[in-house]
Amino acid sequence: MSEQRPTLAELRQRIDKIDQDIHQLINQRAVCAQQVAEVKKAEDPTIKSFYRPEREAQVLQMVMQRNQGPLAGETVARLFREIMSACLALESPLNIAFLGPNGTFTHAAALKHFGHAALTQPLATIDEVFREVEAGSVNYGVVPVENSSEGVVNHTLDCFMASSLKIIGEVELRIHQNLLVAKGTQIKHISRIYSHQQSLAQCRKWLDAHFPKVERVAVSSNAEAARMVKSEWHSAAIAGETAAELYDLTILHANIEDNPNNTTRFLIIGTEEVPASGDDKTSLIVAAHNEAGALYHILEPFYRHNISLTRIETRPAQNDIWSYVFFIDFEGHQQQPHVKVVLDEIKARVREMRILGSYPKAVL
Amino acid sequence: MSEQRPTLAELRQRIDKIDQDIHQLINQRAVCAQQVAEVKKAEDPTIKSFYRPEREAQVLQMVMQRNQGPLAGETVARLFREIMSACLALESPLNIAFLGPNGTFTHAAALKHFGHAALTQPLATIDEVFREVEAGSVNYGVVPVENSSEGVVNHTLDCFMASSLKIIGEVELRIHQNLLVAKGTQIKHISRIYSHQQSLAQCRKWLDAHFPKVERVAVSSNAEAARMVKSEWHSAAIAGETAAELYDLTILHANIEDNPNNTTRFLIIGTEEVPASGDDKTSLIVAAHNEAGALYHILEPFYRHNISLTRIETRPAQNDIWSYVFFIDFEGHQQQPHVKVVLDEIKARVREMRILGSYPKAVL
Repeated sequence: MSEQRPTLAELRQRIDKIDQDIHQLINQRAVCAQQVAEVKKAEDPTIKSFYRPEREAQVLQMVMQRNQGPLAGETVARLFREIMSACLALESPLNIAFLGPNGTFTHAAALKHFGHAALTQPLATIDEVFREVEAGSVNYGVVPVENSSEGVVNHTLDCFMASSLKIIGEVELRIHQNLLVAKGTQIKHISRIYSHQQSLAQCRKWLDAHFPKVERVAVSSNAEAARMVKSEWHSAAIAGETAAELYDLTILHANIEDNPNNTTRFLIIGTEEVPASGDDKTSLIVAAHNEAGALYHILEPFYRHNISLTRIETRPAQNDIWSYVFFIDFEGHQQQPHVKVVLDEIKARVREMRILGSYPKAVL
Repeated sequence: MSEQRPTLAELRQRIDKIDQDIHQLINQRAVCAQQVAEVKKAEDPTIKSFYRPEREAQVLQMVMQRNQGPLAGETVARLFREIMSACLALESPLNIAFLGPNGTFTHAAALKHFGHAALTQPLATIDEVFREVEAGSVNYGVVPVENSSEGVVNHTLDCFMASSLKIIGEVELRIHQNLLVAKGTQIKHISRIYSHQQSLAQCRKWLDAHFPKVERVAVSSNAEAARMVKSEWHSAAIAGETAAELYDLTILHANIEDNPNNTTRFLIIGTEEVPASGDDKTSLIVAAHNEAGALYHILEPFYRHNISLTRIETRPAQNDIWSYVFFIDFEGHQQQPHVKVVLDEIKARVREMRILGSYPKAVL
């Protein structure tokens, strides 16, 4: 510990000076954002929203790349999201519908993606979110699409089949698992641990280390597990914080998942197509011919052109009970030449193909 | 429209440069915050939290004072709150208990006050929030104290009578009123409007202008009003968004309150006293003697020393059914000489007096 260490007063003076500079720059940024809006209005007097998903993604990508710390890149990117959200709201705040109620993960996803200057509106069903975006009464909608503990949210996929909306972005949220017990249950009494099979798997190493001899019972969902332990003093459940609140359980251990990068995924839906940001994904719906090897033929062009698939899901077609449609996500933007080639090839091999959208990969 | 207007590309370059500078400064600020923590640890190796409520309030006061726009002072202060929250979390994130569940106004108040880098934990009752803070399992608690539509939250006041916790801060949130109807109800059919008396009063001018001939019916709470119109197709309710969600009502008109500065107030509770920030409030509990003019005698020193009272509430004493205690909030800090004089004078005039705390006034 050297004597040269600055005093508290000196450090606070330094911080005050830095704050002054940050403050000035944030307002300068807001002036530039206003000028951007003017230029765009001059180009297109009917323009409704100045939000450019690809541009926001690029700004955040730059933040993550150049970050030197000590703050984490994600932390700084989150601050920039709020700065952009505030600058954008100067012109006209975004109206965002999401699958409610308030306080859910989807709400958190909407705020994570659009910042706290956006106006968010909870709706009761995924269909309503689609309808409000289609009707133009909100700018964008946020719906869940993959839930790490319950798999894919099929209802969202079905809505895309009946809608002409585009995917304009994705959000990922980290999800944590917790060991929950009824009030008063002691660790030494636990003889059973309930959870969804996937959650038990996600916490396997932790369970092996801490409860090697306790029986693990797979049930239909984490919420169901939480409900069951409510009345069983010798049992524990693995579930999220929301379930702990809902059933008034005690969190014995928090964040027990083996892989701390356990995430859940949401889609942002809108009416416009998004230009390339430089690091994008594209989502497709494809109705295959009813023949052997149909999926194999669809996937072959991706393989040949070295394009990574990030997800593939199968759903029954809504108008034909014997046929299936595939939801395919892959890396790349539909405007990129090699992606165009692949899309053309696939189109020739299927009954029907619809591009749900190309959009920036989740940065945060 | 001059030809000198910068192009979109030029503006974006300018923004990118500004962002680089902001980014660098934010990380420099984080380095300073780390050094502050080192200095404090050297002074007191047992220090648990580096959060200084009075210092945060001063930083935000400076932000509001120097702001030149175009962003609103509140907007920039909110961004600084998040920057401070992120810097503080580098050392050790704050643990905050609040009256849950998630998604309530109290949750919003906790995030508004501590920023999104704090760890927030919903609890089922106000008592539990007090208990967790007393037990030291969280750094601070957030509880409602004044609700513009339902008056004072008496339960919080009662908890203070039985606790030695201090008030270390306050949060104010804007509350909006809405005209709600059951799905399908048309404006022309509305013959009655239900709400809590206070909410009807808050929207009187708007009601006079828009529904001059419609009967106004005061009921026990806004939530009760919302519940009633659920099954009455000729009625409307005035209530918040949460009630609209809860009872699945349509918002016919949003933000109909006559005074858009309609706020609700929350207290931050902790174990330590807060030094003066330069713009503070102090809260007292006073048990008066059972005699005529007791309250008048208590208030006289405030008047004589020109100290503004901001609130006064009366509650029955818990251990003596015939006597009352007063909760008094006033402007100033207990370390200021003229406040000390007043407090000494009051102490001599009452059965008992306890200072709940001096704390920075809500800045945002």
